[in-house]
Amino acid sequence: MAQTSIIFRLELDHKKVSFGDVAATISKAGGDITSIDVIRPGSDTSTRDITVDLQDNKETAVVEALRALDGIKVVNVSDRTFLVHLGGKITIQPTLPIKNRDDLSKVYTPGVAKVCRAIAEDPGKAYSLTIKRNTVAVVTDGTAVLGLGDIGPHAAAPVMEGKAMLFKQLAGVDAFPICLDTKDTEEIIRTIKTISPIFGGINLEDIGSPRCFEIERRLAAELDIPVFHDDQHGTAVVTIAGLINALKVVGKRMENIRVVVNGIGAAGVSICKMLLGAGVRHLVPIDREGALVRGQSYPYPMWQWLAEQPQVEANAGTLKELIADADVFIGVSRARVLNEEDVKRMKPGAIVFAMANPEPEISPEEALPHVAVFATGRSDYPNQINNVLVFPGLFRGALDCRARHINEPMKLAAARAIASVVTPDELNELYIIPSIFNEKVVTLVRKAVIEAAILTNSARRTPPDFR
Amino acid sequence: MAQTSIIFRLELDHKKVSFGDVAATISKAGGDITSIDVIRPGSDTSTRDITVDLQDNKETAVVEALRALDGIKVVNVSDRTFLVHLGGKITIQPTLPIKNRDDLSKVYTPGVAKVCRAIAEDPGKAYSLTIKRNTVAVVTDGTAVLGLGDIGPHAAAPVMEGKAMLFKQLAGVDAFPICLDTKDTEEIIRTIKTISPIFGGINLEDIGSPRCFEIERRLAAELDIPVFHDDQHGTAVVTIAGLINALKVVGKRMENIRVVVNGIGAAGVSICKMLLGAGVRHLVPIDREGALVRGQSYPYPMWQWLAEQPQVEANAGTLKELIADADVFIGVSRARVLNEEDVKRMKPGAIVFAMANPEPEISPEEALPHVAVFATGRSDYPNQINNVLVFPGLFRGALDCRARHINEPMKLAAARAIASVVTPDELNELYIIPSIFNEKVVTLVRKAVIEAAILTNSARRTPPDFR
Repeated sequence: MAQTSIIFRLELDHKKVSFGDVAATISKAGGDITSIDVIRPGSDTSTRDITVDLQDNKETAVVEALRALDGIKVVNVSDRTFLVHLGGKITIQPTLPIKNRDDLSKVYTPGVAKVCRAIAEDPGKAYSLTIKRNTVAVVTDGTAVLGLGDIGPHAAAPVMEGKAMLFKQLAGVDAFPICLDTKDTEEIIRTIKTISPIFGGINLEDIGSPRCFEIERRLAAELDIPVFHDDQHGTAVVTIAGLINALKVVGKRMENIRVVVNGIGAAGVSICKMLLGAGVRHLVPIDREGALVRGQSYPYPMWQWLAEQPQVEANAGTLKELIADADVFIGVSRARVLNEEDVKRMKPGAIVFAMANPEPEISPEEALPHVAVFATGRSDYPNQINNVLVFPGLFRGALDCRARHINEPMKLAAARAIASVVTPDELNELYIIPSIFNEKVVTLVRKAVIEAAILTNSARRTPPDFR
Repeated sequence: MAQTSIIFRLELDHKKVSFGDVAATISKAGGDITSIDVIRPGSDTSTRDITVDLQDNKETAVVEALRALDGIKVVNVSDRTFLVHLGGKITIQPTLPIKNRDDLSKVYTPGVAKVCRAIAEDPGKAYSLTIKRNTVAVVTDGTAVLGLGDIGPHAAAPVMEGKAMLFKQLAGVDAFPICLDTKDTEEIIRTIKTISPIFGGINLEDIGSPRCFEIERRLAAELDIPVFHDDQHGTAVVTIAGLINALKVVGKRMENIRVVVNGIGAAGVSICKMLLGAGVRHLVPIDREGALVRGQSYPYPMWQWLAEQPQVEANAGTLKELIADADVFIGVSRARVLNEEDVKRMKPGAIVFAMANPEPEISPEEALPHVAVFATGRSDYPNQINNVLVFPGLFRGALDCRARHINEPMKLAAARAIASVVTPDELNELYIIPSIFNEKVVTLVRKAVIEAAILTNSARRTPPDFR
């Protein structure tokens, strides 16, 4: 259960209650006082803000215990997480002030007219004379948000705003949230195409499967700016990054390992595709119905594509059956689909990435005694497979070289760059993946992505530092 | 012809040419040197940036004259207006930094999940927990940009960005440019509706007539956030503001004047509608074909509506005929449709607003000797009728009271507020309208708009300063 931080604004009647009573009551109800601010002092009554750390589900108990005290009025209860979201988390700023008539005539009428005319004559100038060169749309339909599912476009906004913050803070990219009030595939495609002129890239986010595949495929084909579905490819890139380093820890090679991928949804498909690109020759994709088997027919185009790949195994079976003798398990599925007995049957030097959210496919307590490297999607265990490592540097690179697309070589280059941040000296089974606050990550990912974009002819521009 | 400011980067060979030669050459070609920066000094050669004010069409002449000098290399020519547009004119900033894991868990996963859940349970909370409450889309299809016409969505972007700067600087409103890659009315309506969840208001901009009427009407009916086509209503509001004060100067009343409005496009229709709302009883709307006559039938719904109003005159005729005995001429049409003889035939104390851009319906030189009050849309004459006076305060007010719509009473209140900024002491025929840099404008417009929104039940919230 997550910790949270709550601010209680209390009015105390000093004749009836002391602050000692209040502190004891909060502590008894499970709260931990971290700070006290006197808002309005007074001899008879006073108002104070008490900041309390407590478990997410303990808030009501503390409020009730305080209300039960004579001489206490609970004026307000504020969750600090809510406080940081008040009014939203991003703001739009002019790049220069308009102080006088002369400034105005440059940035607006009449001076702006010649800038408009220059772009009308050469649309490529939109990249130098507008925000296009640094601006990405973070687009969602609100149907697959975190672990919450289909919560709609309004409720998805706080995640998109958070992502925009990370884009700016980590990579200097201007990102704006676009929350679509539709779930229709064609409508989503049409809307994104229609609003695309101001954007230099499209980051698709939390869009449900299987519609996310068609949306991304069509937009990539029909737009000339990079389109990237983070839930698919961000997760895949950081997974491959982690796997590259995990294999170094156990001394195995991509070519020789047998990899089970459980959960062939948006992220699972992209992971499988990248594994093949990275050189894996023995792949076992598994979904709820069991393994995807080479040579069989499947209703989804992406499953069908997988079933046609020579590296995919031809054996049917369940996860429990096929996990035996696997070198690597990658889970993007559900809580507790594996137990201790299952991972025991893996090959020696087993690697388990249990990335189901919020609860992994197997708990670290069960897995750790039997596997060589263990990773999850969570921040409270070592080796967090977090796609915040990917999108800032990837888009920084794609924008800087004006990439037409984000292709497989660019993604693989990003994965290798993330892996390379962990030096051979630092690498061990508890440290296969760098922190998102490691400043080398964005720099190295950007560089690798630009190099791959230039080599694969996706780049339309060579950034000055590559000339 | 507009002045512009150009920076010439020159490499001088000191053996062949002196700076005196350069200065004389620039001056002779029509340029006025305003500053000199030595970029790279040297004994044989040096590189200097020479900033030169000159007329828009003189740039080539100066470059050619410089190139003709022996010992000069023109390294670069930069228009200062273009320089301020480089990379675009707005940027997106996080409202707080993400310094560590704890910050991240509040603004992004896992903490953000409970904020999303709170909005999913009560969508009204989007106003407190996302950027919606302060964010406006500035939307164009790029078909009617300034005097440039249909230049497309990419080329329209610099205007929309300029508008976003003004929104923020003048009224603290976060505005983001949306440039639509379609000219289809239904497609525009559908796209704006689909992307509306993150926005608290929609400012339509530079969308061609007559499609702009249908787009605004439908969006106002189908969305629950305010929708405002600035080219129509911004212009109308500031025109009415100017007229209120011009009438005070000449000592006439709305009820008694006869008003000719020339140019019944987007702005003209809205001006006519507001004039009727402000109490005008004798209105003569005129377009290219002549007067719109009461009782006749017209193909456009807005013209038809006008022809059904009892205040509209029933006489056919041309502008030249009908201008006789008018008290007020309001032009939103074309250059030079009036001459000296025409305005001479107006009533004594004539008011002429000649707002065609960039060249007015009649030049000030011709009009001023014969009229009492003269105004244009230009900044280089007195009395600039500029809709920058309107949209910042209007949206500030509409957002602060969470208005459902921007209705006629709110627009009229905004016009009266703008007029009221000019005090009786200050008012004269050369000062009927305040400067956009006058800090009272936004404050008074906001206040008036909120009051009108509360009275007409458009407001969903009473801002704290109105309680």
